[in-house]
Amino acid sequence: MLMNPEKSVLLIIDVQTGLAPAIHDGEQVVDNCIWLAGVASRLGVPTVVTEHFPEKIGYTVPRLKEVTTSALFLGKQCFSAQADGCFKGSAVEDRRQVIMCGTEAHVCVQQTALELRWAGKEVFVVAEAAGSRDPANRDLAYARMRSHGIEIVSREMVAFEWLRRGGTAQFREINRDFIR
Amino acid sequence: MLMNPEKSVLLIIDVQTGLAPAIHDGEQVVDNCIWLAGVASRLGVPTVVTEHFPEKIGYTVPRLKEVTTSALFLGKQCFSAQADGCFKGSAVEDRRQVIMCGTEAHVCVQQTALELRWAGKEVFVVAEAAGSRDPANRDLAYARMRSHGIEIVSREMVAFEWLRRGGTAQFREINRDFIR
Amino acid sequence: MLMNPEKSVLLIIDVQTGLAPAIHDGEQVVDNCIWLAGVASRLGVPTVVTEHFPEKIGYTVPRLKEVTTSALFLGKQCFSAQADGCFKGSAVEDRRQVIMCGTEAHVCVQQTALELRWAGKEVFVVAEAAGSRDPANRDLAYARMRSHGIEIVSREMVAFEWLRRGGTAQFREINRDFIR
Amino acid sequence: MLMNPEKSVLLIIDVQTGLAPAIHDGEQVVDNCIWLAGVASRLGVPTVVTEHFPEKIGYTVPRLKEVTTSALFLGKQCFSAQADGCFKGSAVEDRRQVIMCGTEAHVCVQQTALELRWAGKEVFVVAEAAGSRDPANRDLAYARMRSHGIEIVSREMVAFEWLRRGGTAQFREINRDFIR
Repeated sequence: MLMNPEKSVLLIIDVQTGLAPAIHDGEQVVDNCIWLAGVASRLGVPTVVTEHFPEKIGYTVPRLKEVTTSALFLGKQCFSAQADGCFKGSAVEDRRQVIMCGTEAHVCVQQTALELRWAGKEVFVVAEAAGSRDPANRDLAYARMRSHGIEIVSREMVAFEWLRRGGTAQFREINRDFIR
Repeated sequence: MLMNPEKSVLLIIDVQTGLAPAIHDGEQVVDNCIWLAGVASRLGVPTVVTEHFPEKIGYTVPRLKEVTTSALFLGKQCFSAQADGCFKGSAVEDRRQVIMCGTEAHVCVQQTALELRWAGKEVFVVAEAAGSRDPANRDLAYARMRSHGIEIVSREMVAFEWLRRGGTAQFREINRDFIR
Repeated sequence: MLMNPEKSVLLIIDVQTGLAPAIHDGEQVVDNCIWLAGVASRLGVPTVVTEHFPEKIGYTVPRLKEVTTSALFLGKQCFSAQADGCFKGSAVEDRRQVIMCGTEAHVCVQQTALELRWAGKEVFVVAEAAGSRDPANRDLAYARMRSHGIEIVSREMVAFEWLRRGGTAQFREINRDFIR
Repeated sequence: MLMNPEKSVLLIIDVQTGLAPAIHDGEQVVDNCIWLAGVASRLGVPTVVTEHFPEKIGYTVPRLKEVTTSALFLGKQCFSAQADGCFKGSAVEDRRQVIMCGTEAHVCVQQTALELRWAGKEVFVVAEAAGSRDPANRDLAYARMRSHGIEIVSREMVAFEWLRRGGTAQFREINRDFIR
């Protein structure tokens, strides 16, 4: 089914100070995570943020942290947050559609996405909001995830599917603040 | 099955004055929609045209409107025309194969295509006759639609499958006026 | 299964004097058809050649005709040779694996390939031995055929699967005359 | 499932002195095979190396041989090592996940990968650790293998899935010696 705000959770993976600067097009990846967090917040979609060993790799980058104040933050030690067990009781467990972004596309994003998919979730990875140090790794991850039924989408696909229709006050607000 | 004129409907999505100029390669996308409408008309394939909030975004671009005088025009407010319910009683409901073009590839074209596919239609999107403002969005949409069994075709594939054979008066006419 | 010479037929589609010069990289496409016909002949794989309305579009190009003297030549009027019915009683009917090449990739090759696939054949299209006037059409055809379970292969994949093993007299001969 | 060191075997195909110099980006392909062999060795993953007619094509290139002293070496005459029957009693037979690399991607790697897949194995081919003389052949092989459910992965995907988690002594060692 199309992405639906009442069935969706936004899951931001490991956008941390010790990793983000090494990511290919990293600034843009962070910008796009912020964009998604902003749209999710306006539309009442819950956001979950993971941090991999933050005491070593650093915490979520400040400008993303600023816009995710109401998100649930989860620490993890497994690359796959699903394997880590940290989602128990969170919106990721409750909701059927998991919209994912973050880093690295071919490690923690992909391992989590695959295991969520195998656990029965509809998984969507936002292409321009995920990244790896080497873009060849990211591209291989997108192709591999596609072959497992994970959808590789764009940030606008997310917004327009969540909005579903034009002409509403909500559409005008999102259109003005995010899309134009 | 191959595209068959007796089972097909041509569905042109939202080629409107307020949107077309912003589309990447927009002139060419409109040209290709006109080309498809011309071939459909010669072969007796019904055409349906949607307009998204035309009072805001403008009506179908004039040069396309000129060649679709016998088409059914449908206004809509949902991005997915299928979700909007506007197809009820139209050729899109009656026919098994829906050949799609228009804009934006990753919003209204894709949402409509996916929901028609999930409703059991055979859906074909004509690659060079659909577009988005940002071509990266169009390309992600084509890959995503493919993963749901939607066929991404070219305008010539449509014409040659509808024609099915050479040597007929019909073939010579289409070949002379459209293909050469 | 891998391509097997005892189960294979080589099917060359419409490499005709009136069409070949218009094909993108046409010389190379013809060269590769000749290469495949040569390997097929050495390994005892039957070859079938179609000609679409040869009285209008011209007969098979002479240098390909020279190396297919023992092939079965079939005229046709439908773009899909399978729809035309011309394969009845031929090796295409008898054999399970159809190795295809020729032109145009997105018209007669693709329509025939899809209908053979839907009739239960294992279909392999040799990428560098098929072509269209516009390479964008060829690329869309390859992606579409893949989504229907048709394998897009290279000429060397055909030869090495037919040969199956090294160290034989047959391998040395093919290696010397075709691969090196 | 994700790649798991207890279920995995590393299978290196035909990286031989008479073939490696002709491979596109051949030095890099060998480097990546060495990298994989190193990680496999540290994590206790068994390694199997095939050599195709080594008396003709030469033995495994020395710098790879140096780091695979505890591997099982198998000679073969069929391009597909699976068809050759040489895996009988080896870790390839015992283990469920086969991580493959080597040359040529479109001949011995692909034929072996397809037949292992059809025999029920989970097969992973490491993109940057396999190669062909002509990269177009490699790319066609990757697309074809994908369509049969073979996963095309990167060397880092292998390492991070085998490691599964950060924070361990094992992770620190692999990270220091291979990833950084």
